[in-house]
Amino acid sequence: MQNFTFSSPTQIVFGQQTEQKVGEATKGLGNKVLLHYGQASIVKSGLKDRICQSLAEAGVEVVELGGVRPNPRLDLVHKGIELGRQKQVDCILAVGGGSVIDSAKAIAMGVPYTGEVWDFYEGKALAQSALPLGVVLTIPGSGSEAGGGTVLTKEEGQLKRLAWSEQVIPKFAIMNPELSFSLPPYQTACGGGDIISHVLERYFTTVQDVDLTDRLCEAILSSMIQNLPLAVAEPNNYAARAEVMWAGTLAHNGLLDTGRVGDWACHAIEHEISGLYDVPHGAGMAVLLPAWMRHVLEHDLDRFVQLATRVWQVDAAGKSPQIATEGIVRLEEFFAKLGLPTRLCQLGIDDARFSEIATKCTGGGEFTVGNFVQLKAADIVKILHLAK
Amino acid sequence: MQNFTFSSPTQIVFGQQTEQKVGEATKGLGNKVLLHYGQASIVKSGLKDRICQSLAEAGVEVVELGGVRPNPRLDLVHKGIELGRQKQVDCILAVGGGSVIDSAKAIAMGVPYTGEVWDFYEGKALAQSALPLGVVLTIPGSGSEAGGGTVLTKEEGQLKRLAWSEQVIPKFAIMNPELSFSLPPYQTACGGGDIISHVLERYFTTVQDVDLTDRLCEAILSSMIQNLPLAVAEPNNYAARAEVMWAGTLAHNGLLDTGRVGDWACHAIEHEISGLYDVPHGAGMAVLLPAWMRHVLEHDLDRFVQLATRVWQVDAAGKSPQIATEGIVRLEEFFAKLGLPTRLCQLGIDDARFSEIATKCTGGGEFTVGNFVQLKAADIVKILHLAK
Repeated sequence: MQNFTFSSPTQIVFGQQTEQKVGEATKGLGNKVLLHYGQASIVKSGLKDRICQSLAEAGVEVVELGGVRPNPRLDLVHKGIELGRQKQVDCILAVGGGSVIDSAKAIAMGVPYTGEVWDFYEGKALAQSALPLGVVLTIPGSGSEAGGGTVLTKEEGQLKRLAWSEQVIPKFAIMNPELSFSLPPYQTACGGGDIISHVLERYFTTVQDVDLTDRLCEAILSSMIQNLPLAVAEPNNYAARAEVMWAGTLAHNGLLDTGRVGDWACHAIEHEISGLYDVPHGAGMAVLLPAWMRHVLEHDLDRFVQLATRVWQVDAAGKSPQIATEGIVRLEEFFAKLGLPTRLCQLGIDDARFSEIATKCTGGGEFTVGNFVQLKAADIVKILHLAK
Repeated sequence: MQNFTFSSPTQIVFGQQTEQKVGEATKGLGNKVLLHYGQASIVKSGLKDRICQSLAEAGVEVVELGGVRPNPRLDLVHKGIELGRQKQVDCILAVGGGSVIDSAKAIAMGVPYTGEVWDFYEGKALAQSALPLGVVLTIPGSGSEAGGGTVLTKEEGQLKRLAWSEQVIPKFAIMNPELSFSLPPYQTACGGGDIISHVLERYFTTVQDVDLTDRLCEAILSSMIQNLPLAVAEPNNYAARAEVMWAGTLAHNGLLDTGRVGDWACHAIEHEISGLYDVPHGAGMAVLLPAWMRHVLEHDLDRFVQLATRVWQVDAAGKSPQIATEGIVRLEEFFAKLGLPTRLCQLGIDDARFSEIATKCTGGGEFTVGNFVQLKAADIVKILHLAK
């Protein structure tokens, strides 16, 4: 086990009708809030009105900025920063899923920053301050509601990049599983794919003596295997929606990082793919994970066997390579049954830009990606062919 | 799943040599610290000197108060409050295990409080403020390093009582598993018994749809079953010590409470027993848990079967009552192999005061204890006879 630091300071307020507490919670952050959201769905559902009413009752003034798209863009962030400065907001409320939260985090860092906010995503600067941020979560998946990560896409160059800052860890996250009832099956499955990918990226580590966190990973995976299909098939199943929503937070709040280093190659590759093709992140991960697993299988067969037997209940009596492979097949079948793609062609992606993806992902071939196995550009091309 | 709130704000600093960071961490809390500790062991081992050196280097002035005993007493807390006020300390550093931390929490609440600190433990008052508190953990078990609970014993009336306040959640906890190498096998086992009891108290719930937290409980139990015997048998096994230490925190930082209500009857009964007989808490729990389980088995056989099959790997093919009972037998055997008592007589306790224990525990027979099953005084006497 490696040395680590851990805290999970976000105040999670979880359960039915908890959005009624948003006014009171936001009042703890400031008096004038930038209400940031996505498409028209929260308007149609009446959620925006309920939130605005709660904010008004708490005496919080509201400045609105909607229009966040999946794979959030830098141009809207620029608009948000300008609006935030002009209206002198002192806090931000993100209502939506990972895209809205990540866009809100960018605005939160950008308002007090004198330089260009993209600096944070290029690793040129670290945010020293940010407006305080709260969340009302409607789409489980990204885990962004309780972490310091934010992923943004710059239209010019189709670059999708990650920034991280302690400053943008949300102060509170209101999580009512009922707000996810209206998510269509495909979006529910994509969110689930994202959650599973967050666990698997951490599961594959070369760090030894990580028994407890292995088992925590397996617990979350096992619960997702049980509950995600229910949430997809029965949109109003509160219990299943609640398990998936809470799993989404615990998969990505740092708990599963304690004492270990994850891999993260698939995330790096998927960011290039969705930068170029604008596919849902969870769908991209469902395609890449099994292909990556097949490519790296031999590096630690025991770990793949452990996953297959403990999580997929593959019979431990057979030979290791078969057990390990069977675990990968079951993951793939699981994704397929949920309606997720498991091949790039299903996302409308052919091999035309495989080498461009691999090159961008490795900084022009200058570095490797991944920690469980360090992949060069040529490995990435091989994985993409396995996923074709 | 029930509605819940959750955060885990304590900054955990985990791993080898992390105690070197204590000066810097404490400096973040104040300039004059009350260094609170237990017996001579941290002096002998040189740990106290290393801590004092780190504090001195950070420019933190030190006021010392040692002498905390297992099952910490109110009289030393009174002394600490007086000393803290007189020397005008502005923060507290607890170096030790649960007893030292709990005693430090009492002092932290007591210094700014104008009334009698025991009020908090009798439920007569809630702490509105407290001195900020840091921890260097040397004995895994209590989980007090990342929670708001504190258990104290009042000599007069031999009362052992729990208080809880958000105000005393430690700001940081430095956790170096090497500091637990010197713990004798029996104390290691007692700490492990405490950790397992924290998980089991939460596992037994009547709340439905708690799949994810069930599995998290099972993950921690499974890891303890694997690592606790290693930590007992090989005192210098870093990996095993680390798994046990981290399990101790996660078992009691609120994570396993999310969406569910635990039972806690055994803790209530054990507090009466160790109030009267001064036995180690973990040893008392090892005796009481199997007896309590046998008494309540029929209330939710499925839950006992789930525990037996998932955690103790009992073959699921048999009949439910047998599977469930086999799970209890394996827990008892596990405790016994670690050198823990599984009968009250092994703790030198006979049936002379069973009825007094039951009466005290239920407020003179006026209320019940436990949530999974509500126990009356007569039930408690039955459980004590099962544990005889």
